[in-house]
Amino acid sequence: MKVVKFGGSSLANSTQVSKVVHIIKADNQRRFVIVSAPGKRFAGDIKVTDLLIQYANATLKGEPSDTITGQIIARYEEIATAFNIPQAAFDQIKTTILNLPHQEYQDDGYLMAAFKAHGEKMNAMLIAQVLKASGINAKFLDPKDAGLVVTDSPDDAEIIPSSYERISEWSDSKLVRVIPGFFGYNDQGQICTFSRGGSDITGAIIARGVHAKRYENFTDVDAIYAANPQVVHHPIAIHNMTFREMRELSYAGFSVFHDEALIPAIQGDIQVVVKNTNHPSERGTSITSHKRVNPAYPVSGIASSPNFCGIYIRKYMLDKKRFSQKILKLLAEYDLSYEHMPSGIDDLTVIMRQDQLTPELEDTLIRELVIALRPDEIHISHNYALLMVVGEGMANRTGIMSKATDALARQNVKLIMVNQGASEISMMFGIKQDEANVAIKALYDTFFPDL
Amino acid sequence: MKVVKFGGSSLANSTQVSKVVHIIKADNQRRFVIVSAPGKRFAGDIKVTDLLIQYANATLKGEPSDTITGQIIARYEEIATAFNIPQAAFDQIKTTILNLPHQEYQDDGYLMAAFKAHGEKMNAMLIAQVLKASGINAKFLDPKDAGLVVTDSPDDAEIIPSSYERISEWSDSKLVRVIPGFFGYNDQGQICTFSRGGSDITGAIIARGVHAKRYENFTDVDAIYAANPQVVHHPIAIHNMTFREMRELSYAGFSVFHDEALIPAIQGDIQVVVKNTNHPSERGTSITSHKRVNPAYPVSGIASSPNFCGIYIRKYMLDKKRFSQKILKLLAEYDLSYEHMPSGIDDLTVIMRQDQLTPELEDTLIRELVIALRPDEIHISHNYALLMVVGEGMANRTGIMSKATDALARQNVKLIMVNQGASEISMMFGIKQDEANVAIKALYDTFFPDL
Repeated sequence: MKVVKFGGSSLANSTQVSKVVHIIKADNQRRFVIVSAPGKRFAGDIKVTDLLIQYANATLKGEPSDTITGQIIARYEEIATAFNIPQAAFDQIKTTILNLPHQEYQDDGYLMAAFKAHGEKMNAMLIAQVLKASGINAKFLDPKDAGLVVTDSPDDAEIIPSSYERISEWSDSKLVRVIPGFFGYNDQGQICTFSRGGSDITGAIIARGVHAKRYENFTDVDAIYAANPQVVHHPIAIHNMTFREMRELSYAGFSVFHDEALIPAIQGDIQVVVKNTNHPSERGTSITSHKRVNPAYPVSGIASSPNFCGIYIRKYMLDKKRFSQKILKLLAEYDLSYEHMPSGIDDLTVIMRQDQLTPELEDTLIRELVIALRPDEIHISHNYALLMVVGEGMANRTGIMSKATDALARQNVKLIMVNQGASEISMMFGIKQDEANVAIKALYDTFFPDL
Repeated sequence: MKVVKFGGSSLANSTQVSKVVHIIKADNQRRFVIVSAPGKRFAGDIKVTDLLIQYANATLKGEPSDTITGQIIARYEEIATAFNIPQAAFDQIKTTILNLPHQEYQDDGYLMAAFKAHGEKMNAMLIAQVLKASGINAKFLDPKDAGLVVTDSPDDAEIIPSSYERISEWSDSKLVRVIPGFFGYNDQGQICTFSRGGSDITGAIIARGVHAKRYENFTDVDAIYAANPQVVHHPIAIHNMTFREMRELSYAGFSVFHDEALIPAIQGDIQVVVKNTNHPSERGTSITSHKRVNPAYPVSGIASSPNFCGIYIRKYMLDKKRFSQKILKLLAEYDLSYEHMPSGIDDLTVIMRQDQLTPELEDTLIRELVIALRPDEIHISHNYALLMVVGEGMANRTGIMSKATDALARQNVKLIMVNQGASEISMMFGIKQDEANVAIKALYDTFFPDL
């Protein structure tokens, strides 16, 4: 049995939804359908989730929201009309949307979560009706009834492990169950969402819970590519990859499949297949725990992620352990997370995502570091990109680092940081972010030479 | 005014001591003379310090020590006789050595410290007599009278900063002052030594205290070389280097000048010159804070240090900050220090000196890490070498990493770890230690091609 998830672009309008209907009809193993909210129909369009955020903000400010609700309802209405959904069913969706401001919420955070989640929830109700109207025995299943209990964090919830047992009770359901993605309920029955794009997570949780053979993640690309197609012209598709590879690549910017959605898939050892709603016959990308034997290329993918900064700290004869402990304590105090902390003999650099820091917070942090560490030198550098070269085939091969650094040197890309050794399947380079595209192209040409 | 320090091999016997006399006579700026204990006269000889350790151990066990004291006294006697030292002066040295067991010591640690320190102390008294007998107006100066107050740690003391003011009072001494290296006194008046080889430290402390223009460190090599001469045939001499370079190289095994001795030199911004007692006219190696402009070679030196191990820890979606904090806390509990902690996305490796770990402690540590972190994978690998490529000329040049990794790849040296970016003047590679010599040769040939 398979769990299928459709992203926002796959459900953006009735044309897209009819492709979804075909896909579900084509394979009666597809018994759990997770849906996102309707996405963009064209460049410049507004996603329903973003309209709902506007709606929530207007509600919080007591501003009128008729125009926004009109836009939201129109998105569902176009689909409902195209598939001749019964008026009563559509009215229920419409009324629910209009009534959102009149529900009770614990606080503004929960209000926002509930508004956002209704993009998925209404879409799941609608798609269940669409499937029924198309002759499929389908039924809406609310995450609450599915057993999806999450931690009490309105916009960044995590699944509570005991949920899996409740979800597993749905395993032998004969109907097609349509479940909204992106959210669950805390133990008080309030809606809490996963992080943005979290419908992938719902899909993976359901797949693990019902012990699915496969989790198909339908999106709008034919596969995951070895490099960003906006940077490299026609990059090679990765048809098979491991969970570890996907994890390292998504860390560094491969956003096709949600990072956190990998965890339930790994825990349940469920094959994830990324496929294209628009070309469902394409192979797509299969992600499993199986390592490939003798891969054609040692490297699977090359990714780059911008907006990192590095705090360089030098102190002669530093006691690294005590020094690092003080730094970690300070970062914790300011609720900052760091990515890497490469150290030399008398210096270390704290690499972190710079969007965590305002100029004021940056000043405060540096000042506190000076007080705590009395360094000989301290400064912060901005606008780094982390460039990752990832591949199971890299383990136990010599010369990969040499090839990579040679390719970068020929393009005069300055290496601010090189980090290899923690993971055996990746190398990481810190570079200036305005050199990232040149770097990716150079590495792609090096590791995929005959393409 | 200059501070000069002579190492053990420069004072091993009367032939060597006469070279020392010539060196001091040659320059009347050389007004503070720091001496080590007599070292080896030939391969297989025993250093006086090691004889004193035997003597201390025999004393602690209540075993007879006549043979050992005989050997010790004979070393001083050979020099005393050659320079016609007055019998009374020599008798004082002899009696002091024989009376060592009958002094009062706070505990065995202080006893050991005092026994060891007398190698230097007796030698300083002797050399003062030798200089006097050679027509130099010289006088023994005890570290206590010099003002050298240290922390209360019998075998790993550190200078107490207020000492510098007291030492500075000796600045305009007209005599040549002969000071034993290697030890100071705690505030109770007990002898505490620096770490082994710590006469270099005494020299640097005195140089800083008296505001010397230069600190000349006389040893038995013509210069510090760009690579270990036992590995590379006739490596190039480094005639000028910076404190930073010296620090990074000595971390990775360059032992000509004591690591900790750099701190007072840096603090006082005092030029350190490493020279050869046997060839005092050779330029030697000058170590200063001045960076060279346009150095001929971007790399100054290549060093390698064996006996590191790495604890690899993998956990999916680890929270690095909390994760690292737990690791540091555990290391602190077991009083272990780590050198580096490179991290990947879901994994990190703790690099540490493996001589800190017994097999039992290793098992305990791994068990505790498993309990604290619940990792998906953990294992320890032994016998790494850390290979350092160091040079002020590397900063802001691209292509150095590429050259280095290419050279290593051509020799099939597997890179277990690559760490660059914390320090701008060095790159660090983790390799198998049995590949270290091949690696050093390959890097030397690459960065010093026309030699």
